[in-house]
Amino acid sequence: MVIAIDATGGEYAPHEIVKGAIKAAQEHKVEIALVGRRDILYVLAGRHLGKLGMTIIDASQAIGPNESPLEAIHSKPNSSIVVGINLVRDDMASAFVSAGNSGAVFAAALLNLGKIKGIPRPAIGSLINITPDTPIFLIDAGANVDCRPEHLAWFANLGNLYVSQVLGISSPRIGLLSNGEEESKGNKLIKETYKLLKSSPLNFIGNIEGQDILKRVAEVIVTDGFTGNIVLKTIEGVSDNWLHSLSQTGQVFAKAYRLPLRALHRDIGMGSWTQRLDYREYGGACLLGVNGNVIIAHGRSQSKAIKNAIGLAKQTVERGICQRIKEEKL
Amino acid sequence: MVIAIDATGGEYAPHEIVKGAIKAAQEHKVEIALVGRRDILYVLAGRHLGKLGMTIIDASQAIGPNESPLEAIHSKPNSSIVVGINLVRDDMASAFVSAGNSGAVFAAALLNLGKIKGIPRPAIGSLINITPDTPIFLIDAGANVDCRPEHLAWFANLGNLYVSQVLGISSPRIGLLSNGEEESKGNKLIKETYKLLKSSPLNFIGNIEGQDILKRVAEVIVTDGFTGNIVLKTIEGVSDNWLHSLSQTGQVFAKAYRLPLRALHRDIGMGSWTQRLDYREYGGACLLGVNGNVIIAHGRSQSKAIKNAIGLAKQTVERGICQRIKEEKL
Repeated sequence: MVIAIDATGGEYAPHEIVKGAIKAAQEHKVEIALVGRRDILYVLAGRHLGKLGMTIIDASQAIGPNESPLEAIHSKPNSSIVVGINLVRDDMASAFVSAGNSGAVFAAALLNLGKIKGIPRPAIGSLINITPDTPIFLIDAGANVDCRPEHLAWFANLGNLYVSQVLGISSPRIGLLSNGEEESKGNKLIKETYKLLKSSPLNFIGNIEGQDILKRVAEVIVTDGFTGNIVLKTIEGVSDNWLHSLSQTGQVFAKAYRLPLRALHRDIGMGSWTQRLDYREYGGACLLGVNGNVIIAHGRSQSKAIKNAIGLAKQTVERGICQRIKEEKL
Repeated sequence: MVIAIDATGGEYAPHEIVKGAIKAAQEHKVEIALVGRRDILYVLAGRHLGKLGMTIIDASQAIGPNESPLEAIHSKPNSSIVVGINLVRDDMASAFVSAGNSGAVFAAALLNLGKIKGIPRPAIGSLINITPDTPIFLIDAGANVDCRPEHLAWFANLGNLYVSQVLGISSPRIGLLSNGEEESKGNKLIKETYKLLKSSPLNFIGNIEGQDILKRVAEVIVTDGFTGNIVLKTIEGVSDNWLHSLSQTGQVFAKAYRLPLRALHRDIGMGSWTQRLDYREYGGACLLGVNGNVIIAHGRSQSKAIKNAIGLAKQTVERGICQRIKEEKL
């Protein structure tokens, strides 16, 4: 299985991307196609090419994180994102992983891979893993800002498929994100969606509220892309705030007891504490409903997160998610 | 100035409520009317009644946090919430503060105080204070789940008034919560609202994203009540998660260095660290657009938070927010 990885996109590209890709090739036994500037990638990964079955696919252009997606993919046909997506389209790779401009990845996938015929809408399912053992799948994470109830019901089906197949949780609990638990709570969209989900064969547990997202009361959280995007970014912002405090606390401890910070790291695993709690270590998002497997990693992904995202891509391919969506039409 | 306080509502009622009210009477120089069961309140606050000018208003019934608001206020006319709101209606108190069932407080205020004539919709403005020096005013925090663009523009005006008058920030920055910074981002509601705010005399800084909420890029964050409620509760849930980790970290430190936890508290102010970061210490929400001053404190408010909420109520009264909304019709 060949997995193409965008070696140009993301805050820590290309070094951390290449490092993560090498680790993934070793651990996950996949063949990696590094997509980016050949000269740079050859320097970084040249010695691994033969041994690990890695290849370099030249893509001379880069799409920045703040570029307008549609303009960028049209004006930069040799960008790592467009080239990577086209590898999937042309069956040269089974999946594409990128930590780059997520809007551009989504746009390129929609245009060059296309939507699966007959499905209502492609969506972005995001894995929120504050800790490794509590995966939560939030769908839609930002693809569809204006939705109808039947779209949300469709997202619930996609989430059910993904979580049961890829995470191996049979009959996952499906929660509908709302402003209160009762069936009577929610805006018009949510109230109508509630009725649809209640009468579906899914394991629908009802509405869940913001404070319950990380409590793992549901494995799948259904929401429209507008709310989903804001909620994900809020979790990120608040976590950053706290990570900062946690690291400050460590420094205060160290100072108060005249310990070098590295003693704290050694003695009580201070580093692993903040690391274990770092949402950037895990997670990633999957495009569902396009003709191909595409994983979006966090823009601040370092090597471990990239390795994990490639692992996720591998599982998505192995479980035939794309094919299942096509066949079942859910 | 008399401020009525619900001594029955909230997780730590009545002890922490009464404690906070006594502190507020001492610090803020306000007369407190404690609303709740007379026998209990007499035991808790009896010796302060004369000295601090506190009074007890008997309210024998209690509305639980999970009761249906409308049913509860109809079936419990002697509840602390209904009695407290009616004190404001009958000019016996200048404001009412409650940490009880917020839906019931809102419903009682709407029914018994009434909406200010001519205004589009009452809204809930919530002060998010992760740290004492960074107040952020989010409006609407949950009163209106289905909104039109003109409602959001109205919320922006309310927020502008409140933050400039009560927090003393002249020409506060107004941000519109969306899924991207660009004017082109957002659902239909947000895109239309953007146009209205852009052409208003407000200090509108454009869209802001979830990760920016706590970064104080704007003092006023405008959103519909559905999204606002979910975002607030998400911040709460994530913060709880982190507070828990922070306290665990302290325990690991203590164990690793064989220090009693109280030594950590003493030497480096571990307690004040978690306390300083505890959103429950600050904050509170204000009902805007009803005929009276009503402050909703967090359900888990302890004495300090109650004291702060009473301080907020005092400022809301002193600045004549309710009167200004009536006169200006904004």
